[in-house]
Amino acid sequence: MLGARGGWRALRRCASLPRAVRLRVREALGAREPADAVRVQGWVRSVRSQKEVLFLHINDGSSLESLQVVADPSLEKRDLTFGSAVEVQGKLVKSPHRMQNMELQAETIHVSFPLKMKERHPLEYVRQFPHLRCRNNTLGALLRIRSEATAGIHSFFQDNGYVHIHTPIITSNDCEGAGELFQIETSREAKESAEKTHFFNVPAFLTVSGQLHLEVMAGAFTHVFTFGPTFRAENSQSRRHLAEFYMVEAELSFTENLQDIMQVMEDLFKTVTSTVLSKCPCDVELFHKYIAPAQKGRLEQILKHKFMIISYSEAVEILKQAPQTFTFKPEWGCDLQTEHEKYLVKHCGEVPVFVVNYPYDLKPFYMRDNEDGPQHTVAAVDLLVPGVGELCGGSLREERLPFLESRLQRLGLTDAYQWYLDLRKFGSVPHGGFGMGFERYLQYILGVDNIKDVIPFPRFSHSCLL
Amino acid sequence: MLGARGGWRALRRCASLPRAVRLRVREALGAREPADAVRVQGWVRSVRSQKEVLFLHINDGSSLESLQVVADPSLEKRDLTFGSAVEVQGKLVKSPHRMQNMELQAETIHVSFPLKMKERHPLEYVRQFPHLRCRNNTLGALLRIRSEATAGIHSFFQDNGYVHIHTPIITSNDCEGAGELFQIETSREAKESAEKTHFFNVPAFLTVSGQLHLEVMAGAFTHVFTFGPTFRAENSQSRRHLAEFYMVEAELSFTENLQDIMQVMEDLFKTVTSTVLSKCPCDVELFHKYIAPAQKGRLEQILKHKFMIISYSEAVEILKQAPQTFTFKPEWGCDLQTEHEKYLVKHCGEVPVFVVNYPYDLKPFYMRDNEDGPQHTVAAVDLLVPGVGELCGGSLREERLPFLESRLQRLGLTDAYQWYLDLRKFGSVPHGGFGMGFERYLQYILGVDNIKDVIPFPRFSHSCLL
Repeated sequence: MLGARGGWRALRRCASLPRAVRLRVREALGAREPADAVRVQGWVRSVRSQKEVLFLHINDGSSLESLQVVADPSLEKRDLTFGSAVEVQGKLVKSPHRMQNMELQAETIHVSFPLKMKERHPLEYVRQFPHLRCRNNTLGALLRIRSEATAGIHSFFQDNGYVHIHTPIITSNDCEGAGELFQIETSREAKESAEKTHFFNVPAFLTVSGQLHLEVMAGAFTHVFTFGPTFRAENSQSRRHLAEFYMVEAELSFTENLQDIMQVMEDLFKTVTSTVLSKCPCDVELFHKYIAPAQKGRLEQILKHKFMIISYSEAVEILKQAPQTFTFKPEWGCDLQTEHEKYLVKHCGEVPVFVVNYPYDLKPFYMRDNEDGPQHTVAAVDLLVPGVGELCGGSLREERLPFLESRLQRLGLTDAYQWYLDLRKFGSVPHGGFGMGFERYLQYILGVDNIKDVIPFPRFSHSCLL
Repeated sequence: MLGARGGWRALRRCASLPRAVRLRVREALGAREPADAVRVQGWVRSVRSQKEVLFLHINDGSSLESLQVVADPSLEKRDLTFGSAVEVQGKLVKSPHRMQNMELQAETIHVSFPLKMKERHPLEYVRQFPHLRCRNNTLGALLRIRSEATAGIHSFFQDNGYVHIHTPIITSNDCEGAGELFQIETSREAKESAEKTHFFNVPAFLTVSGQLHLEVMAGAFTHVFTFGPTFRAENSQSRRHLAEFYMVEAELSFTENLQDIMQVMEDLFKTVTSTVLSKCPCDVELFHKYIAPAQKGRLEQILKHKFMIISYSEAVEILKQAPQTFTFKPEWGCDLQTEHEKYLVKHCGEVPVFVVNYPYDLKPFYMRDNEDGPQHTVAAVDLLVPGVGELCGGSLREERLPFLESRLQRLGLTDAYQWYLDLRKFGSVPHGGFGMGFERYLQYILGVDNIKDVIPFPRFSHSCLL
């Protein structure tokens, strides 16, 4: 028997169990014999609720005439109204009325809309209905907040004199290595992939970051930003990763100090968050009340205080002195693991923490050598926040041609990055920038555990619905 | 000999001609014999301009010592300063100075930055240097205008209560047929394409429009918009097409009238254009002075008057009565060709013209049947503008389940669009929307002939630079 809750998932789950015979309305109306277990799907044409009995008329487009359903008034539901889509299960019996042959005595009435107004559905449940989940309160609130945050980001940069740049989505840069890229072909090429011609003449990929293209622009505008989709083909089901996600990226010319970059990151975070809190207080309240209690107070505290700054070397010292044992032993020169990041933000009082000056060998070729030893550290910064980990990453960029040339040469990338070297040959200036993961930002301020619940149409390995 | 203009293109063009021997600075300094035709590339370390002679020191990183260049003062150029990258061609001679062995008597000095401040380079020329062209006045102005227009679009919709939605870039919808889609694979799959596993389990494509996803959202928010990249794998070198371009799309619920949709299109156009004109008058002036004289006056006129509206049927009548002969004979039921669009806007006085109510068979399945005959016309609208053609396209959407079902069935698309049918099963309301090509918008207001010149990194068949 079909439960009243559970919706479509329940429907699917039951599909393999023995079920009542499904009849179209026309078939039910024309049946010669009564039948014990039938079910009919269709739309409600009328609802007449009497003291002792509930009458429905159901039509499914198979006939002009509708099927009369007779039910106990206890089966009436709030969402059972004209136009509702329903599945009724019960007994098909001879009708006492002269005008019709058969009627259906309902045992269950299932209104087949999967979301219920009065119910607080788990977020994983509504994720199954990408075309309907925006009608759920939580997703509705999320999308309004996302929209306000988007507008807030554009305003923040515009108010501060940044030029907005649409960095390209399709790029011939396959840089930074790894096998984590999506490659693009025309659907025709994909089919006839034996012959290797490319639409663009060269292999083309979905961008992983707009940074290098922003650096192009930073050679003509002192302040630029971009805010668009970026892509990773990581085969990860993590609650912090998506195959398609949004990044806010900014690049500043004539900047010699990591401090300047961190200031913009902190200002961006605080300004946009204040905007969101003041523009949609009720929507934020829903999250802070039902999804992440206590997040409200924490956020207010964070907005009042300066973010903390520690160096990577200090971070490693803190970890080494920690009373707890880590799965990955903290060691200078090794990447900070999630467990380390977690400990660091806890150690600092569950607040955002900038970690600066990472080992040279851990970071990409474009980061600026601090010259505090032979290729010892680079002017890189990560912003760690409680619950999410890395929210932002940034650096000063290596603007000195010889440094960049020798690093690219060692990596065998000189030819691929001739154009990037050109930027240093012509009018190179000290510059730097950062990127902020937009979904992680939303996760953090709202306290949403899974990144799939802060984007309208999540894409991840094995899933691309609609 | 290398011309002073022409830049890199000239350099390449000359590459096959007999040229002076290229020497590194170290080689030139250490040469045992004088040589008649040598060239040296490097950066200027000093410029000393005397009455009779110009001295330069050039270094290319091959030695600590720089090479002295002696030149006639007439060879001095404004952009010849400390740090400039130069190519000097001339005679290598014994130096009269004790401290150095050889010096270079310059015949030509070529400052090898491809763009010149004082020159109005043709737009096709600067397109060759995607990493440097933003330093050109015209592209600089364009990018500031593009940024203001972007901000203006966000403000317009926010001020009018629209919720911004990030519709997905990667989609499993391959809808609307045609072979014009880009398909996505991980770079690993692309290499091992024999085994047909997909990252997302299903074939995935780059979106051609956010409309269907916006319609999902229009079931929960009455006003939604998106503004992001869309893709076509059209093998076209047209001045109006790109493989990656930006679309502004909006969807309105509870709208029964095409007039409402047109009003939003017109308001959007006028509001954003007024914003751009008032926020960057000098940048716009550059285009209206040098690129498209007379566009300024036209634009001012357009902002003052209502856009015209004609029906498709009227349009065909106008075309039939035209005194000119068309390559494609105008006929009811046939698509309007570029030549037809051109004639129509001219006939209407070179102003934007809405054409409404197109033949049913010309338009996609989601457009609303006007029921003015058996599948005669649909409530579709195109906005045609001078010089560009179709700037916007919109329609009322078919919100009636039986109409949509039978149309999808005829097209064999019922299964693929089950979710889209669901939107009509649950809480369907009359709704409609439109899309505007952002690059075409910029082309139109600025009078830029080629769409490749209004986007920072143009992508089209055979080209994906950077």
